[in-house]
Amino acid sequence: MTTGTVPQHISKQYDNELENIRERVLAMGGLVEEQMVNALRALTESEVELAGKVIESEPKVNAYEVSIDEDCTTILARRQPAAGDLRLVMAVIKTITDLERIGDEAEKIAKMSIDMIEKHGPKTYYVSINSMGNHARRMVHGALDAFARMDTKAALQVASEEPKSDAMYVAILRQLITYMMEDPRNITATIDAVWTARALERIADHARNICEYVIYFVEGKDVRHISIEQMEKELSGIIDE
Amino acid sequence: MTTGTVPQHISKQYDNELENIRERVLAMGGLVEEQMVNALRALTESEVELAGKVIESEPKVNAYEVSIDEDCTTILARRQPAAGDLRLVMAVIKTITDLERIGDEAEKIAKMSIDMIEKHGPKTYYVSINSMGNHARRMVHGALDAFARMDTKAALQVASEEPKSDAMYVAILRQLITYMMEDPRNITATIDAVWTARALERIADHARNICEYVIYFVEGKDVRHISIEQMEKELSGIIDE
Repeated sequence: MTTGTVPQHISKQYDNELENIRERVLAMGGLVEEQMVNALRALTESEVELAGKVIESEPKVNAYEVSIDEDCTTILARRQPAAGDLRLVMAVIKTITDLERIGDEAEKIAKMSIDMIEKHGPKTYYVSINSMGNHARRMVHGALDAFARMDTKAALQVASEEPKSDAMYVAILRQLITYMMEDPRNITATIDAVWTARALERIADHARNICEYVIYFVEGKDVRHISIEQMEKELSGIIDE
Repeated sequence: MTTGTVPQHISKQYDNELENIRERVLAMGGLVEEQMVNALRALTESEVELAGKVIESEPKVNAYEVSIDEDCTTILARRQPAAGDLRLVMAVIKTITDLERIGDEAEKIAKMSIDMIEKHGPKTYYVSINSMGNHARRMVHGALDAFARMDTKAALQVASEEPKSDAMYVAILRQLITYMMEDPRNITATIDAVWTARALERIADHARNICEYVIYFVEGKDVRHISIEQMEKELSGIIDE
């Protein structure tokens, strides 16, 4: 089995409640993804207004987290979910924490981009930051997609992309240091770029976490703290090739 | 009310289960704190062996997270906790995620310190990293203490220390850049120092998160996503001065 579905219950109302939570997680994810896209575009195309839009929409992400958390608490108290339902609720509780932090990082990137636009620093490293950003965005999109379809195989694939983001971060860091050495006047603007790359690397981490919760929900297996290779081995009997 | 207690139940067994979870969270926290202390000492006193000890004990932290998570799931399924109990379980589920990530960061610092010892880079910046490390360690200790006593006031105090850690990070980053500019041969070792400072800054973030869960558990108020000033205002009627 590579996909999981929310089980049907005798109580239609309960089904609706669970479905509603899932839908809201995806809506929250959609908003966070939009923030990432806008923050990156603000940076690479020097659009201060777009950056402002990202910063403005941050409270919306926070509100999603708090209210989905409340819904989960209510379901736990009233419906006493068991087995798969309980795993779904646990996966949701953990997923929204990571989504909210992705939103935080997108906000940081937006703030940084305003600063970078104002400082008129060198734009040559935007190319690598943009490609790292696209990689992170694809990971977030893939993680949400795996969550929507409760697809273990897709989740595993997305999770296996994470080490690439670490490597990209190190490469950008080295590149930025070269810029700093070439022209010390660019140091402040370049530090902003370091923070931006760091934010993107964290986003990729969060996307991987979400994938691990999907696997936990579908397979009932805790695959945190193991390498991608171990993860694949662990799931090899389950995933159909 | 500034402190919360786990309510007493008719079932002694249930009380024991909740108490057991709390104790294990504190044991996990103790282990993580020890890792931080050892990782910092390994760095500042060039003790490779001590760094190795930190790396070796990392799987223990992960095992704690997985097993406490399982215990929480079991309690949710079997005991159907309500009100304060449910908030405690939710706070635990979130706290252990942050504790595990503190352990991850300590492991990174340990790995970095081995690398830095081997590269024989400049040791002048160890002073500032050490003082940032002590600040982060005090925050972790304070957060765990607030958790142990379920003390809102203490949690608020620790959370308010977090912006200081951000400021320390920025200061260290500037210092490190100066070193890199002075002598390009030190760049690789200095990048390790950047990563170390970053790990410490993340640890302070996690400590603040734990404080927010303590407040959530005791007061039933979600204080995430608000500034320290707002937090204090929000709780002013509750906390006795």
